Amino acid sequence: MKSEKLPEGFTLHCPVPLGDHSTVQLAHGGGGRVMQGLIEGLFLPAFGGPSPRPSPGGKGGLAAIPHDSAVFEAGGARLALTTDSFVVSPLFFPGGDIGKLAVYGTANDLAMAGATPVWLSAGFILEEGLSMDVLRRVVESMAGAAAEIGARIVTGDTKVVDRGKGDGIFINTAGVGLVPAGVEISPARVRPGDAVLVSGDLGRHGIAIMSVRERLDFEGALESDCASLAGLVEELIRSGHEVHCLRDLTRGGLASALNEIARHAGVGIELDEAAIPVSEPVAGACELLGLDPFYVANEGRLAAIVPTEVAGRVLDVMQRHSAAPQPAVIGRVTRRHPGIVEAESVLGVSRILDMLSGEQMPRIC
Amino acid sequence: MKSEKLPEGFTLHCPVPLGDHSTVQLAHGGGGRVMQGLIEGLFLPAFGGPSPRPSPGGKGGLAAIPHDSAVFEAGGARLALTTDSFVVSPLFFPGGDIGKLAVYGTANDLAMAGATPVWLSAGFILEEGLSMDVLRRVVESMAGAAAEIGARIVTGDTKVVDRGKGDGIFINTAGVGLVPAGVEISPARVRPGDAVLVSGDLGRHGIAIMSVRERLDFEGALESDCASLAGLVEELIRSGHEVHCLRDLTRGGLASALNEIARHAGVGIELDEAAIPVSEPVAGACELLGLDPFYVANEGRLAAIVPTEVAGRVLDVMQRHSAAPQPAVIGRVTRRHPGIVEAESVLGVSRILDMLSGEQMPRIC
Repeated sequence: MKSEKLPEGFTLHCPVPLGDHSTVQLAHGGGGRVMQGLIEGLFLPAFGGPSPRPSPGGKGGLAAIPHDSAVFEAGGARLALTTDSFVVSPLFFPGGDIGKLAVYGTANDLAMAGATPVWLSAGFILEEGLSMDVLRRVVESMAGAAAEIGARIVTGDTKVVDRGKGDGIFINTAGVGLVPAGVEISPARVRPGDAVLVSGDLGRHGIAIMSVRERLDFEGALESDCASLAGLVEELIRSGHEVHCLRDLTRGGLASALNEIARHAGVGIELDEAAIPVSEPVAGACELLGLDPFYVANEGRLAAIVPTEVAGRVLDVMQRHSAAPQPAVIGRVTRRHPGIVEAESVLGVSRILDMLSGEQMPRIC
Repeated sequence: MKSEKLPEGFTLHCPVPLGDHSTVQLAHGGGGRVMQGLIEGLFLPAFGGPSPRPSPGGKGGLAAIPHDSAVFEAGGARLALTTDSFVVSPLFFPGGDIGKLAVYGTANDLAMAGATPVWLSAGFILEEGLSMDVLRRVVESMAGAAAEIGARIVTGDTKVVDRGKGDGIFINTAGVGLVPAGVEISPARVRPGDAVLVSGDLGRHGIAIMSVRERLDFEGALESDCASLAGLVEELIRSGHEVHCLRDLTRGGLASALNEIARHAGVGIELDEAAIPVSEPVAGACELLGLDPFYVANEGRLAAIVPTEVAGRVLDVMQRHSAAPQPAVIGRVTRRHPGIVEAESVLGVSRILDMLSGEQMPRIC
């Protein structure tokens, strides 16, 4: 059957070189330039080839999607599909745990395409010897998170690897969401003149993880921002204001997310550094650890790019929603320096916020 | 937002005890009774609760689904969703590799619900230090397998864990398939009097893996049966013959799959041992290793349960398809001893084929 079914003209692509990495580095999962190189050098050439079967109305395809979700049509419905594996260490951290993260993370990826998360899958890779009590706490946390956002875990899988070949629990969640008619949220819609907003203060998740991992005791409450953004996005869509692009600010933080958008949309982005909310404890911790909060991971914050004339009203919608604790307009999209993200300090000094180049904090999600 | 959205009356279920396991054992991923205990004692009570949001035509729900796929409606389409993580060791084996396995495995799970696999996601968990060349071979193998079955890998994710916290490559694939109108394939449709068929000889995959892992050199070609069953199932559906239930015979083999069906359908199953195809090399290897081929994993074999009056014609369809190399009618569904699978030897001696109780071969898929 195999050879019969290989479509005519199908060939495996010869991928571009993957830089000078002959082995996988932590940075290949870091959300920055090295990971981007892996995606563009290996995954896209292999998976993004010509579709052998005319997909039913499908616009999906890894190559075409700088999104976190693929969007396609089936029957009369527009669906989004996304996947994320979670390997965070430790499994429990202030403000969350791997179970919550696994549900919210995938739901948030769907929400960034304007999709309502409805069906989730859960794939567990457990390490032999894991405490059953730990597993139970994680599973119950997932169930609570799914119930909260109104999604349902409808199918699952469990694999167990021998002791020392895993690390407690890894979870993959894939999600299928429904994209409402008329909703088109994508980096391709970003235009010069658009306003850039964030939904809250940055860096809490990364710093919360680091504080537990390194046993650091920062002043003030430092909890992860780990939360669902699906309700906030539903509210934004319901408000009727045009939204061009949404992006949750996970691995690589604000800077990497905006770099990806700038590159894919062929625009520049200028930020007002003073307008970007960062809490005192996060700012202090970042100073201590030598980190830039604009690169630190969040698990409950989004950037929204909207036409400048609706920015004020979008900000109003955010201000009324509990999932956007400190919304702010932080910059604008420009025609100048396409593909570049710049931040201007209060003193009027500009610096380029490049994409994260290596790996700042491994296993943050 | 969180507390607002928790549906009224939602409570976390108190799961039934998980036997005497206070930690996770290899058997919890083995496809037998211990894994079943984990699913029924922990996952179903947590995830199978009342749906907080009326699902759009959804019949899905982990609790209701003894299937490998959840089936639900969206728009005018009937969709199936499934997930599987792959942790096979070694990554390459005679007749296949983890990449092929990841694509075929998930496609096969969809096919068992009568669904045509269309969209796949790929989530990689890589271990720091993995050879980039190995990753490339696996990815190209996935791409080839997806192209062969006409499915598309439309979204993905990569995580990297530090050296010694993973084992080379783990892959999760989730899949979304389309279920043709009118197709209802489910254990719930199994009836006393139905015939039980298999598509080919059993045990190749498990024995191929064992032969590499244990450096055993069995006589004859011992390649995994790793293959897509989607084309065969499409052909069965196209033939118009009624098919009540399909099941691919992975972890736990034929015996565990039929036990699950017997239990869920509340029927007995009687097999003619002499009719069940097992190749000479597999039979020999099983004898040597003290294994029962009816419990050994397959990755390209299915059992079909069909009304007895169409069994001959279904066998004909199988005989004409390359994915069913040695189809056979192997037994029947009975009213007697519900929940029990029995095999009768050539000498007329019956033995009970219980569900696999522990773990026979860890990390087989």
